[in-house]
Amino acid sequence: MRNDGRNYQQTRPVKITPNYMKHAEGSVLIEVGETKVICTASIEEKVPPFMKGQGRGWITAEYSMLPRATQVRNQREATKGKLGGRTMEIQRLIGRALRSAISLEALGERTITLDCDVIQADGGTRTTSITGAFVALCFAVNKLLQNQKLSKSPITDYLASVSVGVVKGQVCLDLNYEEDSQAKVDMNVVMTGQGKFVEVQGTGEDSPFTREELDALLASAEIGIQSMIEKQKEALGPVAAIVGS
Amino acid sequence: MRNDGRNYQQTRPVKITPNYMKHAEGSVLIEVGETKVICTASIEEKVPPFMKGQGRGWITAEYSMLPRATQVRNQREATKGKLGGRTMEIQRLIGRALRSAISLEALGERTITLDCDVIQADGGTRTTSITGAFVALCFAVNKLLQNQKLSKSPITDYLASVSVGVVKGQVCLDLNYEEDSQAKVDMNVVMTGQGKFVEVQGTGEDSPFTREELDALLASAEIGIQSMIEKQKEALGPVAAIVGS
Amino acid sequence: MRNDGRNYQQTRPVKITPNYMKHAEGSVLIEVGETKVICTASIEEKVPPFMKGQGRGWITAEYSMLPRATQVRNQREATKGKLGGRTMEIQRLIGRALRSAISLEALGERTITLDCDVIQADGGTRTTSITGAFVALCFAVNKLLQNQKLSKSPITDYLASVSVGVVKGQVCLDLNYEEDSQAKVDMNVVMTGQGKFVEVQGTGEDSPFTREELDALLASAEIGIQSMIEKQKEALGPVAAIVGS
Amino acid sequence: MRNDGRNYQQTRPVKITPNYMKHAEGSVLIEVGETKVICTASIEEKVPPFMKGQGRGWITAEYSMLPRATQVRNQREATKGKLGGRTMEIQRLIGRALRSAISLEALGERTITLDCDVIQADGGTRTTSITGAFVALCFAVNKLLQNQKLSKSPITDYLASVSVGVVKGQVCLDLNYEEDSQAKVDMNVVMTGQGKFVEVQGTGEDSPFTREELDALLASAEIGIQSMIEKQKEALGPVAAIVGS
Amino acid sequence: MRNDGRNYQQTRPVKITPNYMKHAEGSVLIEVGETKVICTASIEEKVPPFMKGQGRGWITAEYSMLPRATQVRNQREATKGKLGGRTMEIQRLIGRALRSAISLEALGERTITLDCDVIQADGGTRTTSITGAFVALCFAVNKLLQNQKLSKSPITDYLASVSVGVVKGQVCLDLNYEEDSQAKVDMNVVMTGQGKFVEVQGTGEDSPFTREELDALLASAEIGIQSMIEKQKEALGPVAAIVGS
Amino acid sequence: MRNDGRNYQQTRPVKITPNYMKHAEGSVLIEVGETKVICTASIEEKVPPFMKGQGRGWITAEYSMLPRATQVRNQREATKGKLGGRTMEIQRLIGRALRSAISLEALGERTITLDCDVIQADGGTRTTSITGAFVALCFAVNKLLQNQKLSKSPITDYLASVSVGVVKGQVCLDLNYEEDSQAKVDMNVVMTGQGKFVEVQGTGEDSPFTREELDALLASAEIGIQSMIEKQKEALGPVAAIVGS
Repeated sequence: MRNDGRNYQQTRPVKITPNYMKHAEGSVLIEVGETKVICTASIEEKVPPFMKGQGRGWITAEYSMLPRATQVRNQREATKGKLGGRTMEIQRLIGRALRSAISLEALGERTITLDCDVIQADGGTRTTSITGAFVALCFAVNKLLQNQKLSKSPITDYLASVSVGVVKGQVCLDLNYEEDSQAKVDMNVVMTGQGKFVEVQGTGEDSPFTREELDALLASAEIGIQSMIEKQKEALGPVAAIVGS
Repeated sequence: MRNDGRNYQQTRPVKITPNYMKHAEGSVLIEVGETKVICTASIEEKVPPFMKGQGRGWITAEYSMLPRATQVRNQREATKGKLGGRTMEIQRLIGRALRSAISLEALGERTITLDCDVIQADGGTRTTSITGAFVALCFAVNKLLQNQKLSKSPITDYLASVSVGVVKGQVCLDLNYEEDSQAKVDMNVVMTGQGKFVEVQGTGEDSPFTREELDALLASAEIGIQSMIEKQKEALGPVAAIVGS
Repeated sequence: MRNDGRNYQQTRPVKITPNYMKHAEGSVLIEVGETKVICTASIEEKVPPFMKGQGRGWITAEYSMLPRATQVRNQREATKGKLGGRTMEIQRLIGRALRSAISLEALGERTITLDCDVIQADGGTRTTSITGAFVALCFAVNKLLQNQKLSKSPITDYLASVSVGVVKGQVCLDLNYEEDSQAKVDMNVVMTGQGKFVEVQGTGEDSPFTREELDALLASAEIGIQSMIEKQKEALGPVAAIVGS
Repeated sequence: MRNDGRNYQQTRPVKITPNYMKHAEGSVLIEVGETKVICTASIEEKVPPFMKGQGRGWITAEYSMLPRATQVRNQREATKGKLGGRTMEIQRLIGRALRSAISLEALGERTITLDCDVIQADGGTRTTSITGAFVALCFAVNKLLQNQKLSKSPITDYLASVSVGVVKGQVCLDLNYEEDSQAKVDMNVVMTGQGKFVEVQGTGEDSPFTREELDALLASAEIGIQSMIEKQKEALGPVAAIVGS
Repeated sequence: MRNDGRNYQQTRPVKITPNYMKHAEGSVLIEVGETKVICTASIEEKVPPFMKGQGRGWITAEYSMLPRATQVRNQREATKGKLGGRTMEIQRLIGRALRSAISLEALGERTITLDCDVIQADGGTRTTSITGAFVALCFAVNKLLQNQKLSKSPITDYLASVSVGVVKGQVCLDLNYEEDSQAKVDMNVVMTGQGKFVEVQGTGEDSPFTREELDALLASAEIGIQSMIEKQKEALGPVAAIVGS
Repeated sequence: MRNDGRNYQQTRPVKITPNYMKHAEGSVLIEVGETKVICTASIEEKVPPFMKGQGRGWITAEYSMLPRATQVRNQREATKGKLGGRTMEIQRLIGRALRSAISLEALGERTITLDCDVIQADGGTRTTSITGAFVALCFAVNKLLQNQKLSKSPITDYLASVSVGVVKGQVCLDLNYEEDSQAKVDMNVVMTGQGKFVEVQGTGEDSPFTREELDALLASAEIGIQSMIEKQKEALGPVAAIVGS
């Protein structure tokens, strides 16, 4: 049994509140256990300079935590005057992951920025951000379809993410903060609705891991991601129809 | 009648959700109309270097907006690598205002940082931040009392804030974004529970204002602030007992 | 009696030296007691990108202090690599105040930058900067008239500023540094020649103030500002003709 | 056949020149094909503030490319005034990987900084940096043993890294730049001498990958890493004796 | 004849106003023709961390120009967020030059910072800064002697600086801005009262120069520097007694 | 005799390896004793904005040291977030020097950037950078000639640099690090193939120098520079034909 009473292969309760923000083209509040992230999708009718005139769109992401999302207050990166390495790594990951779920050609010359702001952190903030950002992206794309700026959805498949790890010798799904602190191996996995891998990032800083452990971690992640995708479908409701085969 | 059906002397609906954040010593979500701010109070058992050894505490504030709190997405200040002038001005105002409601001597050598993160903006974000931060501060101080780190409350009086302005020739209380954009005169007022002024900041960039207008604006602000303080008392519940001499 | 022998309603000696700088389109050295500020107005025949093509001009201000303008040397903001909050707040105030004294439409698509560099500080540097910058602005506009870049003056009224405060229980006009350090209430007021308010910024960080005190402070400020405007007229000499409707 | 005539499971020629730098405690020039990286290990007899007094050491890494290491000149990050996200991500990876090959307790309260400076880039710069940095680290630790600052080696195992990818439908080992640009899937793997995984980072931004592809990539990486470790042993010569339990 | 009517070997009129600033331990306004620089010397009773406990003092310098010191307004370095290369080069030069005129051992563990703020620029701002800063330094040291913090002057010799150049084929002393723009060769020289060189910086970017030209430039500089030292002596008055062995 | 057995008028062994970098248009590794610098020349077919449309080219330089080029590791300027004063001073010197050896008109509207990266430092890094960068520049210009982007070489003369100094009372040529640390006078000289001066930068921070010492230093520098130019000719081989009128 785990510290919060879950089975090893069980995710925490997931709640996705659609259209959480008044102004954004797409938005959700996603809660995975005590981890809470506001994800918004903002559409701009232009692309970065290096992509101009190619007829392709762009998806990018930014990630931040409120200073008191964590047990101890963190100094704001705006106050420090620069983004930390962890933030950069995470926002690059989110952007890369989301781009793999959409056809940039079909999106056309526009940019969608996914902002993932962690309101409260209890482990898994980057994977929760990806899962939530996908839903926000779908809502924003749906607005483009409704406004007839797009005639066909560029979203190619579902996309979600979970963390897995080895804690006290056990492969565990969806680690909370306490588990994450104790994990010997820590892995973030992003997969599509069709069960293909988009990102696999496993690290055994404190303890290298065997091929057998890697296989068990991937199997566990697959279970968790399918469960996340079910929650995405519920939150999307009729908008789920725009996610392509 | 105003653009949202209010009377000229009427504030928007105010909702203060206490203990909104799991980790902070004090926190609220404050909603004034469509403006939503998360205010947290974080206690540190030390003071800035320039205050060490004086036996006095410190109150400081930080303010930020989520990039999509507004109609058009704003670039993050962390990405720009520096705080803008507006942010600095606002966080200096919040800190100064809150310090006037507490005895720093009675607080003892510790720092309370008030983080005001605007989730959604529709005018009045700085005044809403002050009103919410006061409640978060009270909850944090209450924790110090409960933990017997303080034996007596250092909070000297209630403190709240509203905006007032002259819109289409009418003195209006608690401007929303649309009104704020049209206002000829714009004033932010911070007052105590005893009806004294802590800050008066009025600006008539587009149109200088007369002494009569100033008097009417101050009278309107007083009405709004008393109404805000009622909401603070409700949100504080029994904790309200720690306020005042 | 005050620490320098003045009456409560008396400003310090004011001296405005016109055309203090060789290169600037307009410039003064303004001395209010021991506070000395060089104000220059620089004309550029373009506006910031966000204003292009609207046919309107722009007025902006920058403020700085020499490192040894003060009793203790201050580190340069250029060396720190960023502007402090106080500087940003002041330069935003100066710009906003000056814009209220000019018709940006009548100015046409050009920018006038007002640089206020405090050579020596003894209280009231921001109000002195506004009073001096107005004169520099008039000289620069006069040059535009002389060069026939403008056919009609866009300056709509006089504009000056003073500080007032409550020191040892007395409302005092034009505080020097020592008084400012002891003041319970501190207020900066900007007014037009016609006696209208452009900015009112009062703060009672150490001690909230009553409505009666506020009224007395505003009355005192009005006296001081009228006296400052007299000095501006003397310094402008025949150029004074370009001011007002 | 590949664009440079290699088999799919063949690495490029590897050359490790030990003691390449005069001043560093440990250093190599590592060449993997046309990719050339100078790796130095610098010992400091102190640890970062957050680790003081715990009796443990620290390993950290920095990564940079000469501006003309690449086909098109890159602007220096020192000139831009900040590290890019890619650099931060890579130096975090190198540091994390190297820490897994050493007992920080056995190292004692000292820091070893691994600087990886890419002189010339042709794909695989981060994996080459890890492989080279491990050798530099061994030389530096050997110096500590020789100087009797350590009585027992803290290096627990060999550690090396390669990239693998799917290029034109084929799993390829050790991609050069041209292959990397065409790869549908790109994976960096770090393994120990005992064949355990330290890092697995696979990304299929342009095309999600199946479990079968993942298995094939990992198998290929294992071959490459064993070959890298052979080269490390040759370069270390008698110093190889300090590696492992 | 030169553009302002001077002989080739003649400096512009020099005026040094002592004690120009109220707060600084030493200060002058130095005017060389239309070039005007405020130089202040600020004493701190501590040295930079790297010099602690050595019993030696430190002299450092900072240099800046008001934005409208020049014909076209320059953006402030504080606004840009960093010092330019030219500023850094100049302030390093001023500090190095001044350190050569004082015994750091005899100064004792304290720092004197020389701030050179160019109010108006017309060529020769760095050489004028050095000449003025020397006088400000002497006044500050004199204060240390008067306050009995020093019993013996650490100032070892006079120190002054001028520019020389080749303009229209003629070696000219003390170039103004117009001459400087046309100069083929530009040289800044710093010398002591005893006629020794402290700095010689000659550059022929547009046209390399011969040994004969170099000799003529140095001879001209020597004349100018002796003349500057006469002006320093006048400004120092009785304080001149503290200079030299 | 000197610390490394050289005569006072003897340079250290010089080795210039041409075409050291695969990607750059021109490159060398230059070794002067234990000082090693990679110099690359990168051509861009555009000029900085302020030079557009004038038909002239631009030469600029950047300089950096690997963190462990020195005995003690230096923090990277990219990590600090800004260039230090020494770096700025040096790269300004290199750029200025190289521009004097080429006709910018004859180069046409293109920019050549000279990157000087110090791999290992043992004194004289700035002079070695200039000597090496000249050769890299020639190779890059030769590529423009071969590609028929230029029909005639814009290189007007050879250009090289050495340091000289007064060490233990002796004028010494080409100081190594140990000598440099002990030098009373330190001078960097840049000369053309025809024996004209481009830069003379002498500093006697610890001890002012006489005219006789200056003359001896310049004579020594001339010997060293002629010897450097011989090495440049060897490295250039047939490309030497593009130098000079």
